[in-house]
Amino acid sequence: MRAVDIIMNKRAGKELSREEIEFLIRGYTAGDIPDYQVSAWAMAVYFQGMSPQETAVLTEAMLRSGTVIDLSGIEGPFVDKHSTGGVGDKTSLILAPLIASLGIKDPMMSGRALGHTGGTLDKLESIPGYRTGLSADEFREILRECGYAMTGQTRETVPADRLLYGLRDVTGTVESIPLITASILSKKAAEGAEALVLDVKFGSGAFMKDPLEGEKLAVSLVNTWTAMGKKMIALLTDMDEPLGNMTGNFLEIEESLDCLEGRGPADLMEVTLELAARMVMLGGKAVDPQEGRAVCEEALAGGKPRELFLHNVESQGGDVKKLLDMRGNYRSAHRAELRAPCGGYIARIDAWKVGHAAVVLGVGRNRTGESVSPTAGVHFLRKSGAGLKAGDLIMEVYARDEEGLKAAIPQLEDALEYTDSPPAARKLIFKEVRASIDN
Amino acid sequence: MRAVDIIMNKRAGKELSREEIEFLIRGYTAGDIPDYQVSAWAMAVYFQGMSPQETAVLTEAMLRSGTVIDLSGIEGPFVDKHSTGGVGDKTSLILAPLIASLGIKDPMMSGRALGHTGGTLDKLESIPGYRTGLSADEFREILRECGYAMTGQTRETVPADRLLYGLRDVTGTVESIPLITASILSKKAAEGAEALVLDVKFGSGAFMKDPLEGEKLAVSLVNTWTAMGKKMIALLTDMDEPLGNMTGNFLEIEESLDCLEGRGPADLMEVTLELAARMVMLGGKAVDPQEGRAVCEEALAGGKPRELFLHNVESQGGDVKKLLDMRGNYRSAHRAELRAPCGGYIARIDAWKVGHAAVVLGVGRNRTGESVSPTAGVHFLRKSGAGLKAGDLIMEVYARDEEGLKAAIPQLEDALEYTDSPPAARKLIFKEVRASIDN
Repeated sequence: MRAVDIIMNKRAGKELSREEIEFLIRGYTAGDIPDYQVSAWAMAVYFQGMSPQETAVLTEAMLRSGTVIDLSGIEGPFVDKHSTGGVGDKTSLILAPLIASLGIKDPMMSGRALGHTGGTLDKLESIPGYRTGLSADEFREILRECGYAMTGQTRETVPADRLLYGLRDVTGTVESIPLITASILSKKAAEGAEALVLDVKFGSGAFMKDPLEGEKLAVSLVNTWTAMGKKMIALLTDMDEPLGNMTGNFLEIEESLDCLEGRGPADLMEVTLELAARMVMLGGKAVDPQEGRAVCEEALAGGKPRELFLHNVESQGGDVKKLLDMRGNYRSAHRAELRAPCGGYIARIDAWKVGHAAVVLGVGRNRTGESVSPTAGVHFLRKSGAGLKAGDLIMEVYARDEEGLKAAIPQLEDALEYTDSPPAARKLIFKEVRASIDN
Repeated sequence: MRAVDIIMNKRAGKELSREEIEFLIRGYTAGDIPDYQVSAWAMAVYFQGMSPQETAVLTEAMLRSGTVIDLSGIEGPFVDKHSTGGVGDKTSLILAPLIASLGIKDPMMSGRALGHTGGTLDKLESIPGYRTGLSADEFREILRECGYAMTGQTRETVPADRLLYGLRDVTGTVESIPLITASILSKKAAEGAEALVLDVKFGSGAFMKDPLEGEKLAVSLVNTWTAMGKKMIALLTDMDEPLGNMTGNFLEIEESLDCLEGRGPADLMEVTLELAARMVMLGGKAVDPQEGRAVCEEALAGGKPRELFLHNVESQGGDVKKLLDMRGNYRSAHRAELRAPCGGYIARIDAWKVGHAAVVLGVGRNRTGESVSPTAGVHFLRKSGAGLKAGDLIMEVYARDEEGLKAAIPQLEDALEYTDSPPAARKLIFKEVRASIDN
């Protein structure tokens, strides 16, 4: 078998065989197939696409390049959620203890902030002592005990994806739906998840600006996971405005606790509950999303999810007492306020602009490896649809330093759009996508 | 400027700017842009194509990666012919002295046999003493004196093409019309040719099996050369059957001499004269191909082209006396005959099969660097359309060794197709293509 023939088959629009895909990924990971053949192949995939079966084989081949967390001996079901990334999106922090309280295990492997999107690991590490670099044994133990565990990827997690993503990034082959699909799903399969609920975000703050593009990705992800013999439901959700009222590392921990205590903002709770409802259904604890949502609301009211959250913090080395003491006051001293310049309504707060301003504030990073600030962020007192009088407080802004504060303020002002009449309500859940192929 | 943005622009189907193309080719040749970015770009070009203007800029950027033969001080016009390659195609050997006899200079840079196609340099080197590795000074001097000179490419000739072709060969990006165009034309521009007649061959023995594919390439070549401010006419000619009656290195030298003495086979003379007619026209020595052909026929009858051929042999170190003594007897002793098994007609002699059998006989090579035999080859006594009685001689076959002879015979038998009734005459010239853009 020769790599050039595999490239030419894909170039001609043929469906690659399992042998061809495995030959390519194995050879690439071993260093036998050079970058220049794989990048040409990736560009051919960009133009010719891949069937769900083919994408499933690619995902499995990538998965086999590394180690898969062994969950044998732990009682399932194992259900996880994956989001394509956004601004203010802390649903993972709420969902994991919520479904764990219902007997569903969530083996969650998360990422870090990059570009305008936040990262679950960075948020958790704003809790004093919290460790996200768990060994496989620790991960298993905490998962068994708390019902969920939060860790990062290691060098052993899908090395083929790390190599391939690095290559795609510099060869203009990132935006290929089957390649995005295999990248996401190989990592989700590596953590041991069986069923998966997918949050495909669209809008200014999302990877996909357009819901139809998002839907294409959702269909590919759902069908590929299904072709791998597993269950998935995807929701297309709005990311045109930051989710919830807090954007920042510790700020989002606080807001997650608020949600677990029944005091979360409506938009965040709505998206969280719709995702949770489907996780519960896929975990076999409800027959449909309606029942799933009711079960979740009841669980939240009972307080068990909050208990599990704090138990997880403790298990992963975090200081629960400090965490609770820090609520409401763990804020950077480099602070500013944004107030309404005149009366009217907020039409929109542009998530993309807020996300980029947050990087400037110190919440996120532009390059892998840069440090982030736990105490930087934005607290939105008012969001789209809110009526305003001149001088009303819209945001409290916290920066790592004065320089960041100064630079971010005009960007945040620019993210605010006003109108004279009440704007239409935001539609948060655009569509549900289920598999269109059999498994 | 970043290579990844250039890749993404081409991926999106945009026309690349001069700056982008020059940045890419200069960076690649200098080793600053890696193979994996260039192969992804080449695949994007495969799918999105390039405009004639863009292809012209690419050709010029590639041309500038190396040295261009300086023809200043030599009186023009400089007209050359390029063929996309075939079996038994020795038209260059006849055309060059023919147009030189009419005051048109042909600065010819040729290649070697590879795969099923023959190579002008290998044919010339079957003449004892003939040197094809001329220095630039020798090339200029012989061109000035004989009106034409025959040399090979050096490492300084378009290094960007050598690099890019090597990469395309292993990344499934050979079959891209703009990339083929830039590869051919950068080398033709490097030899100093102003006007060019192009022989795009189609049929089993050609790179393009289908005349419509050949026409696409011809249109690209003609329009790109025109966009570079030069003149070109292309002919689409048949390569379904070997051209002329001889396939082999010295055999083709002999047949070229036959043509220069007015005793060439009809098919070879027809193609040669139609190409020559257009070279003469582009060189300003005739107003149209009809007049060009008449001028050429007259020149051949006058004997000057034969004189120039022998003068060139002498100038390039060849032994004219030996050459003339060797005619008709410089043949390998490993010899066989192929005779008609029964009566009827020859329907077709498959050029592709003959070309591959010729490699087995020792005429050509499968890999760069392999040696070839001067005395191996096939002499066709009868070709398609010939009526046969059982036992009639069809081919004399000469091999480098007995092993090659044994292996080639069944391949040559397989190349012969018979019929009971006279087949339709072959149409040798399918179409003429001229520029469809202004220059």
